[in-house]
Amino acid sequence: MRATSVVGTAIVATLFAAAAFVGCSNKHDSQGGSGNLGASASIRDLMKARGLTEADVEGALKTYVPTGKMDEYYIFASGGQSGNVNVIGVPSMRMLKVIGVFTPESWQGWGFGGDSDKILDQGNQGTHKIRWADMHHPNLSETKGDYDGQYLFVNDKANARVAVVDLSDFATKQIVANPLAASDHGGAFVTPDTDYVIETSQYPAPLGREYAPITEYKEKYRGVAIFWKFDRQKGRIDPAKSWAMELPPYTQDLADAGKLDSDGWAFINSFNTEMAVGGTLEGKPPIESGASQNDMDYLHVINWKKAEELVNAGKTKTIAGMRVLPMDVSGPEGVLTLVGEPKSPHGCDVTPDGKLIVVGGKLDTHTTLYDFAKMKTLIQEKRFEGKDAYGLPIMSFKDAISGQVEIGLGPLHTVFDDKGNGYTSVFIESTVAKWSYKDLKKPVEKLKVHYNIGHILSAEGDTVSPDGKYVVAMNKMSMDRFLPVGPLFPQNFQLIDVEGEKMRMLADMPIANAEPHYSQMIKADKLKPAKVYKPGTNATGEIDPARAEGGKERVERNGTKVDVYMTAIRSHFTPDRIEVDEGDDVTIHIDNIETAEDQTHGFTIDMYNVNVSLEPGKHENISFKADMPGTFPMYCTEFCSALHLEMAGYFLVKPKKH
Amino acid sequence: MRATSVVGTAIVATLFAAAAFVGCSNKHDSQGGSGNLGASASIRDLMKARGLTEADVEGALKTYVPTGKMDEYYIFASGGQSGNVNVIGVPSMRMLKVIGVFTPESWQGWGFGGDSDKILDQGNQGTHKIRWADMHHPNLSETKGDYDGQYLFVNDKANARVAVVDLSDFATKQIVANPLAASDHGGAFVTPDTDYVIETSQYPAPLGREYAPITEYKEKYRGVAIFWKFDRQKGRIDPAKSWAMELPPYTQDLADAGKLDSDGWAFINSFNTEMAVGGTLEGKPPIESGASQNDMDYLHVINWKKAEELVNAGKTKTIAGMRVLPMDVSGPEGVLTLVGEPKSPHGCDVTPDGKLIVVGGKLDTHTTLYDFAKMKTLIQEKRFEGKDAYGLPIMSFKDAISGQVEIGLGPLHTVFDDKGNGYTSVFIESTVAKWSYKDLKKPVEKLKVHYNIGHILSAEGDTVSPDGKYVVAMNKMSMDRFLPVGPLFPQNFQLIDVEGEKMRMLADMPIANAEPHYSQMIKADKLKPAKVYKPGTNATGEIDPARAEGGKERVERNGTKVDVYMTAIRSHFTPDRIEVDEGDDVTIHIDNIETAEDQTHGFTIDMYNVNVSLEPGKHENISFKADMPGTFPMYCTEFCSALHLEMAGYFLVKPKKH
Repeated sequence: MRATSVVGTAIVATLFAAAAFVGCSNKHDSQGGSGNLGASASIRDLMKARGLTEADVEGALKTYVPTGKMDEYYIFASGGQSGNVNVIGVPSMRMLKVIGVFTPESWQGWGFGGDSDKILDQGNQGTHKIRWADMHHPNLSETKGDYDGQYLFVNDKANARVAVVDLSDFATKQIVANPLAASDHGGAFVTPDTDYVIETSQYPAPLGREYAPITEYKEKYRGVAIFWKFDRQKGRIDPAKSWAMELPPYTQDLADAGKLDSDGWAFINSFNTEMAVGGTLEGKPPIESGASQNDMDYLHVINWKKAEELVNAGKTKTIAGMRVLPMDVSGPEGVLTLVGEPKSPHGCDVTPDGKLIVVGGKLDTHTTLYDFAKMKTLIQEKRFEGKDAYGLPIMSFKDAISGQVEIGLGPLHTVFDDKGNGYTSVFIESTVAKWSYKDLKKPVEKLKVHYNIGHILSAEGDTVSPDGKYVVAMNKMSMDRFLPVGPLFPQNFQLIDVEGEKMRMLADMPIANAEPHYSQMIKADKLKPAKVYKPGTNATGEIDPARAEGGKERVERNGTKVDVYMTAIRSHFTPDRIEVDEGDDVTIHIDNIETAEDQTHGFTIDMYNVNVSLEPGKHENISFKADMPGTFPMYCTEFCSALHLEMAGYFLVKPKKH
Repeated sequence: MRATSVVGTAIVATLFAAAAFVGCSNKHDSQGGSGNLGASASIRDLMKARGLTEADVEGALKTYVPTGKMDEYYIFASGGQSGNVNVIGVPSMRMLKVIGVFTPESWQGWGFGGDSDKILDQGNQGTHKIRWADMHHPNLSETKGDYDGQYLFVNDKANARVAVVDLSDFATKQIVANPLAASDHGGAFVTPDTDYVIETSQYPAPLGREYAPITEYKEKYRGVAIFWKFDRQKGRIDPAKSWAMELPPYTQDLADAGKLDSDGWAFINSFNTEMAVGGTLEGKPPIESGASQNDMDYLHVINWKKAEELVNAGKTKTIAGMRVLPMDVSGPEGVLTLVGEPKSPHGCDVTPDGKLIVVGGKLDTHTTLYDFAKMKTLIQEKRFEGKDAYGLPIMSFKDAISGQVEIGLGPLHTVFDDKGNGYTSVFIESTVAKWSYKDLKKPVEKLKVHYNIGHILSAEGDTVSPDGKYVVAMNKMSMDRFLPVGPLFPQNFQLIDVEGEKMRMLADMPIANAEPHYSQMIKADKLKPAKVYKPGTNATGEIDPARAEGGKERVERNGTKVDVYMTAIRSHFTPDRIEVDEGDDVTIHIDNIETAEDQTHGFTIDMYNVNVSLEPGKHENISFKADMPGTFPMYCTEFCSALHLEMAGYFLVKPKKH
């Protein structure tokens, strides 16, 4: 339901006034113009022609970005099961770029024969090559709890990996494969100075993923939180300095790092303390009912600063090559403490001042606010009401919370503005609830969304200093909102203006390629990505030792090994003919030696399943066996010039004599 | 440069009038409202706050589609090197869906372990598995020369394939691999009743792609046009009824099928009759200069109806399993005739009445209009001015054309409206030129675009009855139009209103995931895609014999072969536990047994690189070897319900005893 309209009334009033003057205007037009009025002589005519209301006009004028003007914010949105990141401009809600992360993307030459294959291979698990992801929560790097625009970290729920995207060129530079968990969800959340990127598991499994029958769930299955150490100088996660904390098999869910007062701590909610394991074919209740039995599950309160000290003091076991702090150390040492949270909750969001942790009830109608100062005291004073089956201390719920707010049916995630408000996504009732975390009364306002919102984001809304201004409802169901596109419906991002007293729905954005989960919005001026590369830069950001320069192109043969040093510049390749023998091991070292912006070339060899995108200065190494004899054109795959189609040549593979 | 604004003047006049009444309006507001005016009390305030001009307001109001309202048109846009299709709504210019075609796309479970793998494998070439494409020209199926909204055909330039997308569910159903060409470009164009889908080669190679050294170019390298027979009943291309026509090695380019008067004919331009082959490392001129030497290249005029008769009469050679009409038959029989076209042209577009073929000069500033009736007569009367090196007859340029229009620097492609106008993309000078193909005078108008337009489209603009209304400039360079996203810039689609006397630029749409080539725009009401599947429908559109039904789920073991019959419904799988032995060959036959719209589930087994998307009624078969022992969660990857996260289970692989 759109906010009702005193504003609307004002617009109508002005339009009627405008209409009264149409007579005068027309006199001016016929004097001044070339008869160009047509059907669109006034705003009122435009509105009538397109069936727009005043609220629609407001939505249109608040989101339109004219050619040559810029959006104010970037959204970095999870691409969900696409495995990649969608970059969106606000307020226009136009997709600006898809960043290849976990899943090969051929337009940008990500994972199609070039050096990016090696980065993708960093994410292999066990003996399996993994080439997709269920990406959930992109997180921008932070400095002092504020987005600094340098890096983006994303997780893969299905295969438990974390990737590092470098925002100096919007390209993925590293993937780390979680050696312990079989699934993750609480990731990739960052501590306030990005010392750590946190990745916590979802579905329990034995650490290291060893086989164990379901009957041994309580004994052998575990959760785990990995603290991946981030080396900002190198712009890479350092696995050797990373460590993990064993968790009980309670199906951990969302995580968040504390900030300011709560800096040094992290929080994870969970929803299956029942340890339900299903068995639908065996006539047992499914996990959906088994996991919903208890009135409370457990919020995990982690003192990672102290845990780090314990790790450095050697109090770990090594499992699958990683140092793991076991529960029988974490519990007694007060670095892992539990407290009840109502009824299979979802969402775990620290307020901008770092004082409160907000957990969404999901099956309970409340958000619950945990008071960090209270919990810290309880832990320091070892004031517990008991222990769980794994010896972990449990705090009293009443003593840990500052209060609860009745939100509605299905509260999940909360983000914040600059005025002390939280905005919670309310899935089942399909609303956004705005409420104050300072006064904890009932929500000041609810806005209907279309439909069934999952995650929610606001401008810089999970930092120490949110901007307010915009909220985006990331709705799971679009149903009747868009033109039909078959049985797989798009999702719907709805942009909401939260600057005024009341929330105002501005525009719908269908998501064409993903089921997104979390996303973050950052002020555009914080990012200053490069427009070209230093000549010879490869996929890892280094100047490649095998870079090819103009005038130094060549083909080197060493038995069956062929190295081609090749350049691309408008509108030809040098060399543009390569002849090899069937069975040769070929490596093409190719550089775009242009320097002008937006002067990208592509390169493919037909039938060899390779494609790379070469931005100005970019270098790629493409290695393959010439195992299929024949005549194969090679050409520039990215439109580059008037003579783009002439930018071609031949790759000839001479068959072995038989 | 935006069209200057008598309209703009009118809007300003009305706004000033509105401003004069603001006083009155405020009185009404303070009586009627709740103090909600804020910063956005009137359109003028909104414009000022956002720096919008009157032309911007027009652009905003002509493109905004309110929540719950629908776009008027779909664009089916090539995804270029992404290998997939982008579906866009007009006038909102929002991406509605990405359709997985040639490149695996994990959100829709396209190519990640399910039955779609088999469709993708149809496109393998030789011994190589091909998993990407350089898609160029999507073409909607036609009936009597008008879009009928049933199918979409797309080509792959890099690996010479054509795919069939079924618009009843927006899913790819078939890929055919071209056995003759090494590269294509003039595809996938349809004849007016979609009897054939035409795919013509680009870079010449020996037919069947056998190895031949470059020195044998003239003797052995060839072009080829395949006429893929479309069986509309089955909705599939029938390779057995398809045939090909050998072409000279002139680097064919764009193609188009004739219609109405020219129905039964097809036209292909070319640009390298010089047969330049480069040799940049050898100090020879690159193809970009070698191919630009001659004043004329050749337009190929093909009588496919008569060629079909010759094929049926057996006048073919069989190469790589396909019947090929050789040049020494086509030439004398009058089914393949040449005529000059100036200076490495690009673009080949038949006018709506079928009477003219428009070729863009590219390096020549003219479009040239070939008169079909004249050419048909010349061919019937065998009035030629000579033959080429391959014995193909050549018509006189002067006698074949109806005229030329001076367009500007770099004319490429032309589309049409309902008033006898052509709109040509002018790449180098970065404009759209509007001109009349009925009176052939200089362009009536040029509109600057941002920047360097490649292809162009208009509403139903290459059919027998274009709609007019909209043109989209598909610009290759975006440069300064959008927020920076690193060295790989997006492309820019600009929507233009062509209903009035003058063209009006409405909005920019960045293309985030592709470098698109051609696209088509179809009236939305022509498409009626399904919203759910008939229960048990698989990827090929059939009811699968292995479908799983509620209450009949089971696990069948036969030695090391394990078949699991599994269902998915909110919010659990049955079974939700599967245990196999290391080395077992597992097939999961899984069905979404929901019936409600937008109730999609996903399915993955962690670490096994599989993901499928199961729309209501959908069936998938997922086969793999359980070669990695361990404990692996499986879960629903598409948010489906409040208890979506609980929709999970385990896939256990018991290790072999050692």
